[in-house]
Amino acid sequence: MKHQVEYKLYGELVIFSGTANQPLAEEIAAYLGISLGEVDIFQFANTNTFVRLRQSVRGKDVFLIQPTNAPTNDNLMELLIFIDALRRDSAGRITAVVPYYGYGRTDKKDQPRVPITARLVADLITVAGADRFLSIDLHAGQIQGFFTIPTDELTALHLLVDHFAQKAIPDAVVVAPDVGATRRARNFAQRLHAPLAVIEKRRALDGSDAALLNLVGDVRGKNAIIVDDEVDTGTTLARGADFLLQQGAREVYACVTHAVLSDPAPERLQASGLKELVATNTVRIPPHKREVLGSKLTVLSVGELLGEVIRRIHGGISVGAMFNE
Amino acid sequence: MKHQVEYKLYGELVIFSGTANQPLAEEIAAYLGISLGEVDIFQFANTNTFVRLRQSVRGKDVFLIQPTNAPTNDNLMELLIFIDALRRDSAGRITAVVPYYGYGRTDKKDQPRVPITARLVADLITVAGADRFLSIDLHAGQIQGFFTIPTDELTALHLLVDHFAQKAIPDAVVVAPDVGATRRARNFAQRLHAPLAVIEKRRALDGSDAALLNLVGDVRGKNAIIVDDEVDTGTTLARGADFLLQQGAREVYACVTHAVLSDPAPERLQASGLKELVATNTVRIPPHKREVLGSKLTVLSVGELLGEVIRRIHGGISVGAMFNE
Amino acid sequence: MKHQVEYKLYGELVIFSGTANQPLAEEIAAYLGISLGEVDIFQFANTNTFVRLRQSVRGKDVFLIQPTNAPTNDNLMELLIFIDALRRDSAGRITAVVPYYGYGRTDKKDQPRVPITARLVADLITVAGADRFLSIDLHAGQIQGFFTIPTDELTALHLLVDHFAQKAIPDAVVVAPDVGATRRARNFAQRLHAPLAVIEKRRALDGSDAALLNLVGDVRGKNAIIVDDEVDTGTTLARGADFLLQQGAREVYACVTHAVLSDPAPERLQASGLKELVATNTVRIPPHKREVLGSKLTVLSVGELLGEVIRRIHGGISVGAMFNE
Amino acid sequence: MKHQVEYKLYGELVIFSGTANQPLAEEIAAYLGISLGEVDIFQFANTNTFVRLRQSVRGKDVFLIQPTNAPTNDNLMELLIFIDALRRDSAGRITAVVPYYGYGRTDKKDQPRVPITARLVADLITVAGADRFLSIDLHAGQIQGFFTIPTDELTALHLLVDHFAQKAIPDAVVVAPDVGATRRARNFAQRLHAPLAVIEKRRALDGSDAALLNLVGDVRGKNAIIVDDEVDTGTTLARGADFLLQQGAREVYACVTHAVLSDPAPERLQASGLKELVATNTVRIPPHKREVLGSKLTVLSVGELLGEVIRRIHGGISVGAMFNE
Amino acid sequence: MKHQVEYKLYGELVIFSGTANQPLAEEIAAYLGISLGEVDIFQFANTNTFVRLRQSVRGKDVFLIQPTNAPTNDNLMELLIFIDALRRDSAGRITAVVPYYGYGRTDKKDQPRVPITARLVADLITVAGADRFLSIDLHAGQIQGFFTIPTDELTALHLLVDHFAQKAIPDAVVVAPDVGATRRARNFAQRLHAPLAVIEKRRALDGSDAALLNLVGDVRGKNAIIVDDEVDTGTTLARGADFLLQQGAREVYACVTHAVLSDPAPERLQASGLKELVATNTVRIPPHKREVLGSKLTVLSVGELLGEVIRRIHGGISVGAMFNE
Amino acid sequence: MKHQVEYKLYGELVIFSGTANQPLAEEIAAYLGISLGEVDIFQFANTNTFVRLRQSVRGKDVFLIQPTNAPTNDNLMELLIFIDALRRDSAGRITAVVPYYGYGRTDKKDQPRVPITARLVADLITVAGADRFLSIDLHAGQIQGFFTIPTDELTALHLLVDHFAQKAIPDAVVVAPDVGATRRARNFAQRLHAPLAVIEKRRALDGSDAALLNLVGDVRGKNAIIVDDEVDTGTTLARGADFLLQQGAREVYACVTHAVLSDPAPERLQASGLKELVATNTVRIPPHKREVLGSKLTVLSVGELLGEVIRRIHGGISVGAMFNE
Repeated sequence: MKHQVEYKLYGELVIFSGTANQPLAEEIAAYLGISLGEVDIFQFANTNTFVRLRQSVRGKDVFLIQPTNAPTNDNLMELLIFIDALRRDSAGRITAVVPYYGYGRTDKKDQPRVPITARLVADLITVAGADRFLSIDLHAGQIQGFFTIPTDELTALHLLVDHFAQKAIPDAVVVAPDVGATRRARNFAQRLHAPLAVIEKRRALDGSDAALLNLVGDVRGKNAIIVDDEVDTGTTLARGADFLLQQGAREVYACVTHAVLSDPAPERLQASGLKELVATNTVRIPPHKREVLGSKLTVLSVGELLGEVIRRIHGGISVGAMFNE
Repeated sequence: MKHQVEYKLYGELVIFSGTANQPLAEEIAAYLGISLGEVDIFQFANTNTFVRLRQSVRGKDVFLIQPTNAPTNDNLMELLIFIDALRRDSAGRITAVVPYYGYGRTDKKDQPRVPITARLVADLITVAGADRFLSIDLHAGQIQGFFTIPTDELTALHLLVDHFAQKAIPDAVVVAPDVGATRRARNFAQRLHAPLAVIEKRRALDGSDAALLNLVGDVRGKNAIIVDDEVDTGTTLARGADFLLQQGAREVYACVTHAVLSDPAPERLQASGLKELVATNTVRIPPHKREVLGSKLTVLSVGELLGEVIRRIHGGISVGAMFNE
Repeated sequence: MKHQVEYKLYGELVIFSGTANQPLAEEIAAYLGISLGEVDIFQFANTNTFVRLRQSVRGKDVFLIQPTNAPTNDNLMELLIFIDALRRDSAGRITAVVPYYGYGRTDKKDQPRVPITARLVADLITVAGADRFLSIDLHAGQIQGFFTIPTDELTALHLLVDHFAQKAIPDAVVVAPDVGATRRARNFAQRLHAPLAVIEKRRALDGSDAALLNLVGDVRGKNAIIVDDEVDTGTTLARGADFLLQQGAREVYACVTHAVLSDPAPERLQASGLKELVATNTVRIPPHKREVLGSKLTVLSVGELLGEVIRRIHGGISVGAMFNE
Repeated sequence: MKHQVEYKLYGELVIFSGTANQPLAEEIAAYLGISLGEVDIFQFANTNTFVRLRQSVRGKDVFLIQPTNAPTNDNLMELLIFIDALRRDSAGRITAVVPYYGYGRTDKKDQPRVPITARLVADLITVAGADRFLSIDLHAGQIQGFFTIPTDELTALHLLVDHFAQKAIPDAVVVAPDVGATRRARNFAQRLHAPLAVIEKRRALDGSDAALLNLVGDVRGKNAIIVDDEVDTGTTLARGADFLLQQGAREVYACVTHAVLSDPAPERLQASGLKELVATNTVRIPPHKREVLGSKLTVLSVGELLGEVIRRIHGGISVGAMFNE
Repeated sequence: MKHQVEYKLYGELVIFSGTANQPLAEEIAAYLGISLGEVDIFQFANTNTFVRLRQSVRGKDVFLIQPTNAPTNDNLMELLIFIDALRRDSAGRITAVVPYYGYGRTDKKDQPRVPITARLVADLITVAGADRFLSIDLHAGQIQGFFTIPTDELTALHLLVDHFAQKAIPDAVVVAPDVGATRRARNFAQRLHAPLAVIEKRRALDGSDAALLNLVGDVRGKNAIIVDDEVDTGTTLARGADFLLQQGAREVYACVTHAVLSDPAPERLQASGLKELVATNTVRIPPHKREVLGSKLTVLSVGELLGEVIRRIHGGISVGAMFNE
Repeated sequence: MKHQVEYKLYGELVIFSGTANQPLAEEIAAYLGISLGEVDIFQFANTNTFVRLRQSVRGKDVFLIQPTNAPTNDNLMELLIFIDALRRDSAGRITAVVPYYGYGRTDKKDQPRVPITARLVADLITVAGADRFLSIDLHAGQIQGFFTIPTDELTALHLLVDHFAQKAIPDAVVVAPDVGATRRARNFAQRLHAPLAVIEKRRALDGSDAALLNLVGDVRGKNAIIVDDEVDTGTTLARGADFLLQQGAREVYACVTHAVLSDPAPERLQASGLKELVATNTVRIPPHKREVLGSKLTVLSVGELLGEVIRRIHGGISVGAMFNE
């Protein structure tokens, strides 16, 4: 009698959560049918972050869920210190799951004498001891190349496209809110079989601070969907929406993966002509912000997506195959 | 009597050239008033590249000029082996000057199970022993972040803008030949005070291989200037030019930093409706290609730009200050 | 005629300051007769720290002053990002001057499944690109061994000893407020020619949280000087002072290098029987805390010490010789 | 029918021993029910150490037992060369088991211009190819932070405490033989519910070489137990014991983890007033030294402790749980 | 009922082949009873090599077969890029199988100011992400020491010896064609129980380029077998054979592991007095070269050798045991 | 009036010596007109090596002279610890000058399951912090490739050749004492315009331990000069000399760079038929060994060679030019 011996490449699967987005971590754990790992995380009076695992991770296959949105430095240092604790407790494999990658926009020297913090952070995560990195919709695809450890970058694009496909908005046009978002908007437009337009920002010729918006393409009489990777202070979306209405758009929707929503984004977007903002829960949106935005905000969950991907990474099963790739 | 003691931070300045673009290296050396360093470079019968310095570089401040255009693998390995020889001969500092960075377009995983060769090459250059990296108009700014050694990325944008500013083409519109070039085209358009348009490529809905071109923006009755970082096989430029003419453009110009001109680019561009192609000499354009393109091709030199930047790096003088930055 | 050519090993000396302790940085610059380097440092709305140098540091010998007291994570990330900006602008040499080293107390695994953050931070500073590290009175001398880059650890002990030597307090006894401070207290006592006592903390035998204090040695009728490396929340010092008074001490003084003073340290110390707290300015003490402590607080400056050491490091002159070592 | 598939994270368990303490390695192997791995270890006539494995370790989970006591340099180099041989024979995982960590006392720069050899040795072990490090009672806990590879530091404290608890010595006082041992002595005292005293050494005021001993605390009429991490030349213990007897102690015991016993420690301790020295077998004590010390010496074995910990590390089972942690 | 659980240390075995020697890779896969992994490998018009895996390798135990003969730079870069793609797709373990190691002869600085390319290539393979390296008959055994990753160097010596042992050539003498091949020839001679001779090359005393050949040892009336690691341009073998005939040898055979056969080796050898050249298929010999050499060439296959060794490495079984070592 | 400013690339030149060969270090310092750096080097009772610099090396250009002959492990660890002390005292540049490189013969895996210690030692020297490596006549040229830091390998060959050229021995034949020395002997023979012979060792066919010597080439009636890189136990030289005399040689000389002379080499060589042994002072030969060998031993000094090379390295002047290279 012969028994099939399965490959058990890594130790037991364990999911830990930092303090940045525990609800998402719980969704992931629930999908996987396990409880979150037990840990104490706190700051001492001197603001030093401390992490103490309440269970052994020796030989285990650990996934640590911690997006690095605001407070970015606290969340990032917590991630690094947590990784150090896992490594020094002899975890078998440590995957840093960072659904939103803070500092992602500081990814190149577009002026002299500035840092490339997105690369620095990749080095910090690596030197702390992560074996793998998993994220969603990085600000630029090249950020994967900032890492030497194996990475998986997922996209929430299909979740967002599906949402709008189901709404079946007539006369849709997809709009990039600035030139940097053109490629992402094009990919969205192609999947939605809609035309593309681009809002272009220029410095005013009179030297004033005000930026002038130009519309490249046409939105007249159409329903516009602004597509970007994240909404931060809301200026780009709010101004973009109002500008598109001025240019003759009927209604303006927006969709982003990451609802960073730095103050005063909720109020600003609520006050704008934007009809709906669709985002995911890579960043935890605190109740008071959700309240301000009210029904204007739709949040889709990436919990199932991350849960399934983690299941596959743990089992050594192709992730690409999930996307028919 | 007191003498001002100048800082002499590095050893004597030496410029070496690989075999990829010796004319450019000679221009640089001439600007700096020195001769190129002496070296034997050849391939053995077994195709192994060999480099033998014919002068000591002990303690010297060496700049090695070698773009990595075709034959890319040969030029790249020559660069790496040359660096190894310099390092093992105890050069004081080695700057890899790679005016055109081959493999730059493989800078992210836009499909699963592919390499990020642009990062790999950064690692190869570093492990070979380069202390600094200097390039012009990388395919994406993030490639600077692929390096841990200090880098300087220069741009030839002002050379190209100046050229078109002097031509004073009326009714100009700047066109990005695909969505990936939008930011670069916008920067060009802003400096030229011209409007922007974007050519968007989509897969045909019938599943055929043919890509459909859409114009976002307006070129009717205008003189279009297509802006991109490089011209490779010429398909994008040639098809773009003809498409713009179909869309009502009067005349179509193109300008790029890197004249890669893989076959059959010269013939294809010559046959297209393109009026002029303006490029720089980061890549050496062989005579037979120049001949095919004839007066359609204008080549601007980056020799002086590189020479001055090298002078400043050697002297520890700000490079940013050259650009009023 | 022969001229003496001085060694000019590094570029021009430049002092930059992060936001953690600018007054100290200004003292240092004043000692050196130069102005602080110009830089913009701020946080975006999304709490991302940003650093933009307003002058070129190419080839320069840069000293960056930034203690990592509270808010520790912000100050530490600012330090790392600042170093990245300096490195990418081709600074000749970067010395991270961290007068107070945050996370220094997390320097070993005294319980299982915890991080060694003091080592992690050393790795972060190194991977960010610092060439050297300079600090004062590390929590444990072994922390120097956490670094591979060359380090200089200075001590403020002689400043503090001199202060008490001048006061000429009669019948002095030097007290370690817990067993971890014994060595430091002994060194202080030896220089002051005073006897030593140690306060020993034990867990209560009834399992309650309260710690029991034992006095090892004798303070009856003596003037006690508690010596520690830092005062954090003030509990140890305040309880120690009251305990010593109970044990018959006449008056109790305290001296520490680092005035961390996490809340509610000022109020707690003010309310305690402590007569005077002597500290240095490695950490900037905000006015409202100084006000609470009033005349109980004496602050000595390490500005001159750091200035002179930086002058010597820049010039390649022995630092040990300053201390007759 | 479903079979439970156990995790088999690493290859087969193998224990090798260097030449430093083969009896301990045999105890460990016996506990684990296996034989020691076969190997030839010798020095050539030119004093070059050579290691030749006599069995393949491809894919195996190897634990190499080698404390680095005297001859320290030979034992250390043997450790490094052994690791190199294991790595180059493709061992699956290599754990350097160094029950006594030589050079541990050179762990900080307590004077200028000296090495931090304890950090250097950590780097040597890592660069040779060890994947993990396991030791007992390091001279300072911070030495764990000298390593980047995962480490386990065990303590023999409970073995030593249990020994004295069983003896039930009346009127016990625990004594730190110098200020550096205070924390260790306090931990011992707390577990034994005994008071603490500290011997403090000072330079003589007359500038002579002789150190003056002070007693902080009280030993009159009590039975003193001196606690330290190691006994080297025996001076500290012998002088401490005699000093305590002068100060009125009834009897003086000593206990240490590491019986380094450099000459003439056995004779010196035998001649002193010390009643008993309790130590473990982390270091192999040669018969002639045991003979000198006779019944004064009690040796406890760490074989079972190491055996059980290795069993757990091999199986991916919590080590902390052994200690109710 | 208890089941024996086998160790499954790595994921599923997968064999990939680059383009350098696909027939050999297929032999290996056939031996192992599996198909080669699916992949697209090509060069773009700009000569950039591209690799796209057509199956997931997540967690798999991958062996990539790619000798680095001519075109060396293309084959080497393909190897590196392939490794990068495997690593970024999260392969469990990557073994670079390089049956012929190009650049192996540039393994030391035998003149000043030259590279050590054989070491550089080892670093390139490592930085690209290979976990192990497997090769056959390196030019010098020390090249194993150029790698830090575990290596296995196999030898085809026994295949070649067996071939000649079966031929049972009478009066055989083994000849090193230059002093660098002496050790290899001696090992061959010893196994064949034949005497040894050495051809020594010297620069002509008249300063001309011509090298003078001396024979050390005796070949008169004997059948000579020249032994070397590789045949490149064939000069050494052809001249050596003719020289031996001049010196009185009856017939001259040659055997090498690597049939590099750079032009015009086939013609040159065909024209020489050499009777037979025996080589292996580590390098793929193109049909037109085989045709020129005709029956003078005998090719032995290393496919079974590599297949069996890969089977053992995958299974964690001793490789040395194959050779009774 | 303009002054030529010399390049002062490194700090002041300082020469330190370890304990292995202080007379050679003094010769070097004398050549350079400076005194040796002051340092305390000793072993504690526990055999831990300790190094304490007695002068600051901040910013200095330090050359540390320490061959690693017997006691090899002590000398090697002393070298590493010395480098650590220099690095932590902020030396500007550290060159490890190791005239004789111990462990050089363990440079490849010529049997399975053995270390490549020569590579390991290169890594140890590098991780300790050396910036450069300088040695003489490495056992194999490939050892240079074991280092990533820049190396200079000098040769004493010309000193030895000159010595024999001056002796003008008639009918000279140069002999390699085993096949591994063939290349070195050939180079010697070529410079001396003498023929070459090789002694070949084989295992006895009867399986006994005794090796059989064969002579390849001819020595009858000639004066033989055996050339090797080192003499260790003297077996190879003594047996070789006697064998050559049996084969008809008139007189036998030997010359080596490194006089390792492990016991009982002096007695064995004295007892052999060897007429003269010529060596250099890379290894310090203790008086009692010199005495045994008496007039049979001639020692040439490499002090001037090393002094001049150090002068050039310090000044950034070509070293190759010394040898007309």
